[in-house]
Amino acid sequence: MSPAPGGPLRLVAATANRHKLMEIAAILGSAVELLPRPADLGEVVEDGDTLEANARLKAAAVCGHTGRAAVADDTGLEVAALGGAPGVRSARYGGENADDADNRARLLVDLQGAADRSARFRTVAVVAFPDGGELLAEGATAGTIADAPRGGEGFGYDPVFIPDGGDGRTFAEMSLDEKNAVSHRGRAFRALAARLGR
Amino acid sequence: MSPAPGGPLRLVAATANRHKLMEIAAILGSAVELLPRPADLGEVVEDGDTLEANARLKAAAVCGHTGRAAVADDTGLEVAALGGAPGVRSARYGGENADDADNRARLLVDLQGAADRSARFRTVAVVAFPDGGELLAEGATAGTIADAPRGGEGFGYDPVFIPDGGDGRTFAEMSLDEKNAVSHRGRAFRALAARLGR
Repeated sequence: MSPAPGGPLRLVAATANRHKLMEIAAILGSAVELLPRPADLGEVVEDGDTLEANARLKAAAVCGHTGRAAVADDTGLEVAALGGAPGVRSARYGGENADDADNRARLLVDLQGAADRSARFRTVAVVAFPDGGELLAEGATAGTIADAPRGGEGFGYDPVFIPDGGDGRTFAEMSLDEKNAVSHRGRAFRALAARLGR
Repeated sequence: MSPAPGGPLRLVAATANRHKLMEIAAILGSAVELLPRPADLGEVVEDGDTLEANARLKAAAVCGHTGRAAVADDTGLEVAALGGAPGVRSARYGGENADDADNRARLLVDLQGAADRSARFRTVAVVAFPDGGELLAEGATAGTIADAPRGGEGFGYDPVFIPDGGDGRTFAEMSLDEKNAVSHRGRAFRALAARLGR
């Protein structure tokens, strides 16, 4: 159940998204060794109605497939003027086969003329253990939706999200380390790492 | 977020049941200091439809009320011939105001003439942290329902539950240490303690 004393904890990553993997690896550091998502594992249907449900679905699927502890996260952008949308549907907000640009475009259209552009990025991160145990952590970052995309770093809604307390740059205008220091995913995975006793 | 190095982790107990508290304290040992359930916290409505949902409800309620990490569990007896009942309804199987004796009596009546008396005790234990993090662990013990209650130790369905792999005694005929070594609650809380890095 426990890793070898002093050795890194090994967690199989549920995501195949290399941006997410890079972020997570940078946050967790050397105490955790991320193993790649098994190539023979099919797509996990993310039909949960909350971020938490989807993160748990993904972690449990990879843990069940590999017999090893697995880590997953689900992230949503919750926009006040849209009543919390796109939320759990953030990845397919622009349509079932939408890419990042489609999703951002739909968001900017939906917010045209909106006085309130406040939003919140929220991540739920989950580790599933082979014995049925689970560890959940959450992180959120408050911010504002920009009028137009800015910056070439990051992914998803990063070019349109300006975190509160910063200098007005979007997440996509920050380095990975700058983003991780204040981001929803950074907060969730640091809380997870602290909980793992490392 | 983390306890003082070397000091015991403090967890507020969500249960006021002294039998459960004794079991949990004995399992967790000196690495965890269990703080009593606050007297001014009203009853938490356990209206979840799974053990897990109820354990999470209770841990979150106590954590929210106290601002401290809180631990809760929910336990059910799942009887094969009854399609998994009483399960999440174990505590009120004999009626809304049923006591342990009422619940056991109903179970024995329901199993009269049943060829298959196999059953499983299952516990889901949850720690809720003030930052929204959660730790879940599960433990189960397979066994058989006795024809009549035997033994004066323990509580709940202990007098009618004979764990597999033993010498035929019911949980209520065992010492607390003997029971904890093989019980659902023992397994769940040991897994929880290992997850807490202690």
